[in-house]
Amino acid sequence: MERIRSSELGAHVGERVRVAGWLQSLRRLGAVSFLVVRDGWGTVQAVVADDARLAPLREAGCEVESVVEVEGTVVANAQARSGVELHAPDVRVVSAVTEAPPVRLDKKLGNAPVPTLLAQAVVANRHPSRRAIFRLGAAAMRGFRGALDARGFVEIQSPKLVEGATEGGANVFEVKYFERIAHLAQSPQLYKQIMVGVFERVYEVGPVFRAEPHDTARHINQYTSMDVELGFIDGPGDVMRVLTEVLAEIVRELGAACAAELAQLGAVLPAVPARIPELHFSEAQALIAGALGERERDQPDLSPEGERWLGRWAVEQHGSDFLFVVGYPMVKRPFYTHPDAARPAYSASFDLLFRGTELVTGGQRLHRYEDYIAALAARGMRSEPLAAYLDGFRYGMPRHGGFAIGLERLLMQLVGLPNIRLAVLFPRDLTRLAP
Amino acid sequence: MERIRSSELGAHVGERVRVAGWLQSLRRLGAVSFLVVRDGWGTVQAVVADDARLAPLREAGCEVESVVEVEGTVVANAQARSGVELHAPDVRVVSAVTEAPPVRLDKKLGNAPVPTLLAQAVVANRHPSRRAIFRLGAAAMRGFRGALDARGFVEIQSPKLVEGATEGGANVFEVKYFERIAHLAQSPQLYKQIMVGVFERVYEVGPVFRAEPHDTARHINQYTSMDVELGFIDGPGDVMRVLTEVLAEIVRELGAACAAELAQLGAVLPAVPARIPELHFSEAQALIAGALGERERDQPDLSPEGERWLGRWAVEQHGSDFLFVVGYPMVKRPFYTHPDAARPAYSASFDLLFRGTELVTGGQRLHRYEDYIAALAARGMRSEPLAAYLDGFRYGMPRHGGFAIGLERLLMQLVGLPNIRLAVLFPRDLTRLAP
Repeated sequence: MERIRSSELGAHVGERVRVAGWLQSLRRLGAVSFLVVRDGWGTVQAVVADDARLAPLREAGCEVESVVEVEGTVVANAQARSGVELHAPDVRVVSAVTEAPPVRLDKKLGNAPVPTLLAQAVVANRHPSRRAIFRLGAAAMRGFRGALDARGFVEIQSPKLVEGATEGGANVFEVKYFERIAHLAQSPQLYKQIMVGVFERVYEVGPVFRAEPHDTARHINQYTSMDVELGFIDGPGDVMRVLTEVLAEIVRELGAACAAELAQLGAVLPAVPARIPELHFSEAQALIAGALGERERDQPDLSPEGERWLGRWAVEQHGSDFLFVVGYPMVKRPFYTHPDAARPAYSASFDLLFRGTELVTGGQRLHRYEDYIAALAARGMRSEPLAAYLDGFRYGMPRHGGFAIGLERLLMQLVGLPNIRLAVLFPRDLTRLAP
Repeated sequence: MERIRSSELGAHVGERVRVAGWLQSLRRLGAVSFLVVRDGWGTVQAVVADDARLAPLREAGCEVESVVEVEGTVVANAQARSGVELHAPDVRVVSAVTEAPPVRLDKKLGNAPVPTLLAQAVVANRHPSRRAIFRLGAAAMRGFRGALDARGFVEIQSPKLVEGATEGGANVFEVKYFERIAHLAQSPQLYKQIMVGVFERVYEVGPVFRAEPHDTARHINQYTSMDVELGFIDGPGDVMRVLTEVLAEIVRELGAACAAELAQLGAVLPAVPARIPELHFSEAQALIAGALGERERDQPDLSPEGERWLGRWAVEQHGSDFLFVVGYPMVKRPFYTHPDAARPAYSASFDLLFRGTELVTGGQRLHRYEDYIAALAARGMRSEPLAAYLDGFRYGMPRHGGFAIGLERLLMQLVGLPNIRLAVLFPRDLTRLAP
């Protein structure tokens, strides 16, 4: 008898079927026992009226999480969570677990401490509410790629081992690379720009590494960056338009593929407006200063508190979970940032806030070789380590720009997680290199 | 006027259109000049009868690779490569290149030396034949993911920073991780197995890092691994079946999306038989010994020469570009390998040869905690650094297995590249950390 998935049971009412999975719980209610088996797709409850049917579990000393096969008759029952249950089950033990697992998987995780969930991630990630988050992540990546494939973008894989902190900033990990020192790439930024010279439109989904020594709920040292870069734009508006379309497709895919997971997590998908509202940085700062006090003004960046305030403002004023803040001051942006032609102290770049947190950074880049030479000189950066990158501009580049979406930050905001580590299967931070 | 792509010109015969891209060549034939512009999708030729139309290029001192916009009338011409050309073009310079690029992009690359192509990759990757290879790579990833999404697999992103050379072997890169030493993951092997406990079926496409100090045409130190792992198998045959289906889908996607690129590269897609022929390792070795000499026998592995011979044998005997070799000796396989129950010196694992080169390694893994403890002890490996991984088995795992396809090796064999570095945008090897 071929094994079927728990999600397929509804199509087999009245039949004898075989399911397999992990023994999530076994409880007795009077003369009847209820055995819940979890497989990759969901759970199924088997109702055991004859106690002898559980003998194989008893004989093997099975605790929960034992791997079992159950053959039973599918019976419709409106009271069962999935609308069906198995009757008269024959149980076979595949792998007996004889020690209770460190995390209970049949109860709500509720206020389980984050450090415990992370230390026990190998088992804790089996919890239905943890699985739901990671299914959202897979769907988000699928939506991202689908949107870009449909728009003529080419997927690339860039090197993760590079020479030097070429993007600026000191937050790079050192690698012993044979007789030399290499560094882990902080982003695919320079390579995706080079690749605009090859394919015009490229994207990459991959790990990036930040050696930031910060121990906060928003910092991790490896995360998944969904990067895009495109050429032949007129300005940052073209980049923002593609980003808006990509977000709409991610949200569409999440809704189509993960309705059950969203409901389980109590997460509500945002609407992506055809045109996301936008504010210039200076307007945003003035609004925040008006609301939160003058200390918010004359900073080169927005404070996290200011961003949260803007998030509420965008909902109230525009009914939008998203808000573009455009024209951040050049002084806070990296060397490849294109200035706003009309107000050169401000950049042709943007952040996208999602529910009051920066989710995406993007913008137009410099595209002329001489502009790079001048920008590097003005920042006191050497151009020699960037020689290959600069060749891309020396030998012809169009106006271009792009953006990067942090996958884990998207999940954190979407689900309302208190800590970004909960959006990662096995997070890496100041103290965690395992599991 | 909205810019259109070179690939869309055929739908605009008789119209005035605007294209944009890189000036790939400009040559004069008598009174007429031919200007070829390359964009992300192909090339278009503009025919210039009135020399004054080229004044903008002359005035800016434009060399090839200058970025230009061309407005012209689309005229059907069976002699033009794409069946159409532009007449009476108005040319506008977007970015002038005033220095001839280091690689000619309008001629066949032919025997351009590999080191030159790699050193000049920023520009050389713009060559149509280089682009074709990377478009095949993108299509292969798309086919891989599509096949697995359709089969209920969940995409994961595993940590690339790990503690210790946990998979065995010494070929790991050391990373300075704050106050500690971390290592770059040699593969997602341990994590994808753990994740079978979560989702049953998982895959990952991502970079893996091998600190192998070998300078050969087949070695690179970062490559793209397309990894799969699935639970509730009966044996390695189930893994081989999924692999066969995935390969069929990759080949289908390559044929559907990249017919022009394949033709351009002179690459012929393999047929993927519904059932790929297979040989047991011991049979394979006997056949090779019969053909190439007795020194091939009693080795724990097949020689590259032996693999090439088997590749020819599979074509001759089975008309197949693919051949499974199953049952490699346990001594050459990693600790998590499941033995063949009937012949425990041999493993329940396989290699897939593609045109005489190992393309995929896979097999069934141990799934019982006590088997891991015994396997590690037998190899003199400490179980403590693997504690979290082993928890996956302690708390219940089904029979499972998986495989890993090397993306670059697939491209190398498919296109017949002489060096695997040519299948990578910006390869990393003993001497290369840039571009």
